Amino acid sequence: MKIKIAIVGYGNLGKGVECAICQNDDMELYGIFSRRDPKTLKTLTGAKAFHIDEILSHKDEIDVLILCGGSATDLPTQTPELAKNFNVIDSFDTHAKIPEHFAAVHASATAGKKVAIISSGWDPGLFSVNRLYAQAVLPEGEDYTFWGKGVSQGHSDAIRRIDGVLDARQYTIPVDAALAAARSGENPTLSTREKHIRECFVVAAEGADLKRIENEIVTMPNYFADYDTTVHFITAEEMAKNHSGIPHGGFVIRCGKTGLNKENTHVIEYSLKLDSNPEFTSSVIVAYARAAYKMQAEGQTGCKTVFDVAPAYLSPKSPEELRKTIL
Amino acid sequence: MKIKIAIVGYGNLGKGVECAICQNDDMELYGIFSRRDPKTLKTLTGAKAFHIDEILSHKDEIDVLILCGGSATDLPTQTPELAKNFNVIDSFDTHAKIPEHFAAVHASATAGKKVAIISSGWDPGLFSVNRLYAQAVLPEGEDYTFWGKGVSQGHSDAIRRIDGVLDARQYTIPVDAALAAARSGENPTLSTREKHIRECFVVAAEGADLKRIENEIVTMPNYFADYDTTVHFITAEEMAKNHSGIPHGGFVIRCGKTGLNKENTHVIEYSLKLDSNPEFTSSVIVAYARAAYKMQAEGQTGCKTVFDVAPAYLSPKSPEELRKTIL
Repeated sequence: MKIKIAIVGYGNLGKGVECAICQNDDMELYGIFSRRDPKTLKTLTGAKAFHIDEILSHKDEIDVLILCGGSATDLPTQTPELAKNFNVIDSFDTHAKIPEHFAAVHASATAGKKVAIISSGWDPGLFSVNRLYAQAVLPEGEDYTFWGKGVSQGHSDAIRRIDGVLDARQYTIPVDAALAAARSGENPTLSTREKHIRECFVVAAEGADLKRIENEIVTMPNYFADYDTTVHFITAEEMAKNHSGIPHGGFVIRCGKTGLNKENTHVIEYSLKLDSNPEFTSSVIVAYARAAYKMQAEGQTGCKTVFDVAPAYLSPKSPEELRKTIL
Repeated sequence: MKIKIAIVGYGNLGKGVECAICQNDDMELYGIFSRRDPKTLKTLTGAKAFHIDEILSHKDEIDVLILCGGSATDLPTQTPELAKNFNVIDSFDTHAKIPEHFAAVHASATAGKKVAIISSGWDPGLFSVNRLYAQAVLPEGEDYTFWGKGVSQGHSDAIRRIDGVLDARQYTIPVDAALAAARSGENPTLSTREKHIRECFVVAAEGADLKRIENEIVTMPNYFADYDTTVHFITAEEMAKNHSGIPHGGFVIRCGKTGLNKENTHVIEYSLKLDSNPEFTSSVIVAYARAAYKMQAEGQTGCKTVFDVAPAYLSPKSPEELRKTIL
């Protein structure tokens, strides 16, 4: 029997999840729930579309709901609400607000005897897991996370929510000197500003106040305020021609010392080079959907993060097969 | 209250564990158990030494035993035996015999209501975990593990067990062309032999049959038979002068495709550059010792591997702190 997955929200991430499910033989896509009229929603694989308001009536048919809305306005209400009745996964990525989101989702999921996994994806997600492993293994050292060069969906989305913005792409670019310093084993202190620059390409509405838009971007807390950010206003044609891909990637690097006199240095490095950020993020989320299903089947409940999920839950292989083939 | 750790076996790995415990504030070293006369055993940090035969009388004083013997002859008997009475961790690294070792340890640990974690370290260990995450996230793709350049303790140890060998160092060296092929996204099939060469430096006893020793090395199953292996006989002086360090490292690389038409390629790469293989391995084991302690405190029992240990168990930080600071 396959794990029945449903998708809530049908943007880039929802489409990525739809494709990812096709690559996992132990899963099937039940359908896509959206605020849009289901009749107007053309799905990539011919998956059924439903209106989000009907979702509770499908409760018994769905094993795990994957929530593909945005962190700014969708997930803070959707995840706690839906976790009362469904096993859910989201990719909530406003790092500063994770504790608050966790608390709200944990209350709902516990009451509903469901498993909710929040903040999955690659950062938060796989990068977080790598920071944890590296810190636990090398307690005396420093770790550094770099993003890019690539388009950040969350940051592009944040710009798009600004009044007068029609479209936006934000590239995060690691500073080369900072990457080299992180790998040196000298454990330098690198400020947020020293590590990355943020470059924004924005299509504004006709007659919009460009100065105000630029100011709203560069001063936006959590997203841009701590970085050197440049904003370029371009035409919709330039956007389509030069910025249609959504690549991304990044590095988690930790250097630490061991030995009686701290005489030995070790470097742990994890990196991603992604042609499509939403498709890769979706692939991570789908693996965690499997974990949520297995964990709830074992009787676990409540809100979890990637830190609480033993690696074996992510795999379709049995524990015996995993030990035999890849341990 | 600190986690009380004891070490069984006092070679390079045992010494590494002794040092690593000093770097973890939530742990203390109870003592070192060895087959040697405790009076003759000088410990690096002044830790107490005990004879292994007395270990049962210390049962109630020890939270976790870290077993630092070899995979060839020590661990297959020690781990199942000690898991009856102690939470134990080992770094059993004969990949082909892991299922059998798991079964024996699981029976003991379950009967004794203890937690045993086998095959921790970096491979098996952190590399295994990275293979699992990468495979779960990118089901359509290939992964490649490369080791080195570095000294393999297990392989050097295997050579030292050959009759007539006084000392040995084995360097594992990845083949550059194979590394490039693995990162290309073309998912080539690379044989064991294409990926690495193995270079051995051996000090033989006077009058030993060098031809026989060389033959025993290059034909050794699991260790050398599947590789192009070169053997150099050198003097003890050359060994001391040129081969006293024990660096190591390696790469786990997975390339996979996503998208409706598999049009996007993603590369996940994990790498280690280690000045001291035993000290790094020890640092990993010590983090898993913390996990064993926490898991048993929660009522879990039986044999676990790195696949069964949720990342949060490895950290001294609370779940709240982890979510707030590194998720």
